[in-house]
Amino acid sequence: MKMERLDSGVCIGGFKAYGVREGKYGVAFIVCDQVCDVAAVYTKSSVKGAHILVDEKKQSNGLQAIIVNSGNANAYVKDGVQDAERMCEIAAKELGIKAEHVGVASTGITGRKLDLEKIEKLVGKAVSKLTYSAEGSRKAAEAIMTTDTKVKELCFEHNGIRVGSIAKGAGMIAPDLATMLCFLTTNADLDREELQKALERSVEDSFNMLVVDGDMSPNDTVLLMSNRKKKCSLEDFQYILDHTTKEMAKLMAWDGEGATKFLEVEVKGARSREEAKAAAKAVTSSPLVKTAFYGENPNWGRIVAAVGSRIGFSLEKIDLFFESGKQRGQVVEGGVGGDLEKAAEILKNKEIKVIIDLNEGDWKATAWGCDLTEDYVKINARYN
Amino acid sequence: MKMERLDSGVCIGGFKAYGVREGKYGVAFIVCDQVCDVAAVYTKSSVKGAHILVDEKKQSNGLQAIIVNSGNANAYVKDGVQDAERMCEIAAKELGIKAEHVGVASTGITGRKLDLEKIEKLVGKAVSKLTYSAEGSRKAAEAIMTTDTKVKELCFEHNGIRVGSIAKGAGMIAPDLATMLCFLTTNADLDREELQKALERSVEDSFNMLVVDGDMSPNDTVLLMSNRKKKCSLEDFQYILDHTTKEMAKLMAWDGEGATKFLEVEVKGARSREEAKAAAKAVTSSPLVKTAFYGENPNWGRIVAAVGSRIGFSLEKIDLFFESGKQRGQVVEGGVGGDLEKAAEILKNKEIKVIIDLNEGDWKATAWGCDLTEDYVKINARYN
Repeated sequence: MKMERLDSGVCIGGFKAYGVREGKYGVAFIVCDQVCDVAAVYTKSSVKGAHILVDEKKQSNGLQAIIVNSGNANAYVKDGVQDAERMCEIAAKELGIKAEHVGVASTGITGRKLDLEKIEKLVGKAVSKLTYSAEGSRKAAEAIMTTDTKVKELCFEHNGIRVGSIAKGAGMIAPDLATMLCFLTTNADLDREELQKALERSVEDSFNMLVVDGDMSPNDTVLLMSNRKKKCSLEDFQYILDHTTKEMAKLMAWDGEGATKFLEVEVKGARSREEAKAAAKAVTSSPLVKTAFYGENPNWGRIVAAVGSRIGFSLEKIDLFFESGKQRGQVVEGGVGGDLEKAAEILKNKEIKVIIDLNEGDWKATAWGCDLTEDYVKINARYN
Repeated sequence: MKMERLDSGVCIGGFKAYGVREGKYGVAFIVCDQVCDVAAVYTKSSVKGAHILVDEKKQSNGLQAIIVNSGNANAYVKDGVQDAERMCEIAAKELGIKAEHVGVASTGITGRKLDLEKIEKLVGKAVSKLTYSAEGSRKAAEAIMTTDTKVKELCFEHNGIRVGSIAKGAGMIAPDLATMLCFLTTNADLDREELQKALERSVEDSFNMLVVDGDMSPNDTVLLMSNRKKKCSLEDFQYILDHTTKEMAKLMAWDGEGATKFLEVEVKGARSREEAKAAAKAVTSSPLVKTAFYGENPNWGRIVAAVGSRIGFSLEKIDLFFESGKQRGQVVEGGVGGDLEKAAEILKNKEIKVIIDLNEGDWKATAWGCDLTEDYVKINARYN
């Protein structure tokens, strides 16, 4: 199917955005001309950040705006919900809309009270500069960054349907807790249930193949707003949404804290979809695999061991390939190691694809991740 | 109960040992004067290293000796089982006993064929020096080291029952795949079924609280040999065995690759034993928690987030303490952060205990681990 890439980020038409920063705090807005239908997927963590408790209540009535702050997660604090609601009120007042139509999200350090005074100041600045132009989306994307080193912003159009997105995160990616926030805007004319179903399906094969299930931050949030301006089929929307969330997941993997290499792991020939997913995620989550890639060390035993720690397979059936650009090398054939010199050569690239064929069935899955480096340790030892 | 610490390692009487090294390869022996009853717990990985396939068949008939090599894991290789059996034959010939009574274990790089010529040479050297003295145990413990920086050897006596042990491992400890090998000798006069039951129970609260379940190396092995020289109760044996395996688990945590700090995490007030264990292991497994400890950063939000990623709890009930030696500080009280300066002060120590009281039930569990440092990354990026 045909898909066009646009530069507008979340400003897909009818949506304004902007963001400002001051020190560790940043505030960003996405504001629509009308109340939008909303779909959302939140962290599975048992103790959710305050903003999620607020958004969960509001989303069924629709949202016209979302305010996001970086610098403080507003999680694990007394009165967190009250402060999150206060943020919405401050934003609503400045925007001249109802607080019940303002959603909220936070990212940053946990356990510390939100500085509402600082947020109020930043809200004023951001609202005064809201714009429909691509610059607005970019400024918003910049304002929600924490340890991110790259702005994460995408927009695709397909058959007149647009999906725009900004995001931050996700730290080490798998297997841990760094917060991931992703905001999506669309013009797709689908109802709330359809949007929700499409988003859940899409997250399953994108962000959930990046952030290992059950090991998420208290604040992880993927939120989709639709102004329903464009008639469309569910199939077309799912197609463009899936493309957007997968590309965004890859941007996050590329920007893993301290990462020097991007890893795509495809497991095929599995006996079930679940096993394919578990195996692919096991590989991208393994510290030993991640450090081996950092060291450009074709230690395929660690890859096989990571797979074997989660699912059963027959070693003598397994084929393993490394790919990068046009280079491709078979590292394991029928369970036996191959040309490791060529494999080591491929690992010198920044973008590496690992293909593991279990040769036992017809199911496959792809997971994304990055290497584990000294810089990851430095960043997270010092972050506060 | 009274427990004495001895210096004899696995040489508890009636057992000889020795070990030699040459370059990356090492060979160690533990040899008894008679055929011993054997209990063993192996990796849960679906694809097991060759030595396990060999030992599983032999252990019910009893073992008189065990040969261990470091430098090559003999895993993920063609003819691995044949080579492991060949190792037993070489050892048996040199020892003048039956190969069916020789067990085997390997640790090191995976995917490469064992150098049997080198092993044969080392076997000759090691057997010629076998000794009942503590030196033999120490040499054996040294010969099985890979990335270990400290020799791991213990011996305890209680009511005349002795349990001796040598071990290597376990790399980063949780949550991944570095091989852990632990050999235990005892004089406890219990039958094979009793020994097996006691060992399984003991491993559950020691090594399994160190190495996260289902994420083990293909070679992980805990093997116990008993010459049954001392009448004893199952209760007394369990007591001394539990003490030994827990202390050994702690030695491994202390020697985590690149580690600068030892972490003991006690979760109490849980609604079930399973939840207490899952929560304690979640904390010791979290890269974000581990890097925070390395940075001496009292980021308790990461600890709470790690718990919340695995089990449900009420934030407003949670109390969290840091302890080191005589220092103790309450970091969280009823879900609210406390004196973080004092907490940071405690984190300057090398040995840190984290106590998390969920205040929801009567169950507790303890897990062990270490911090995550740049040196872990360096060691594992280069290891081959």
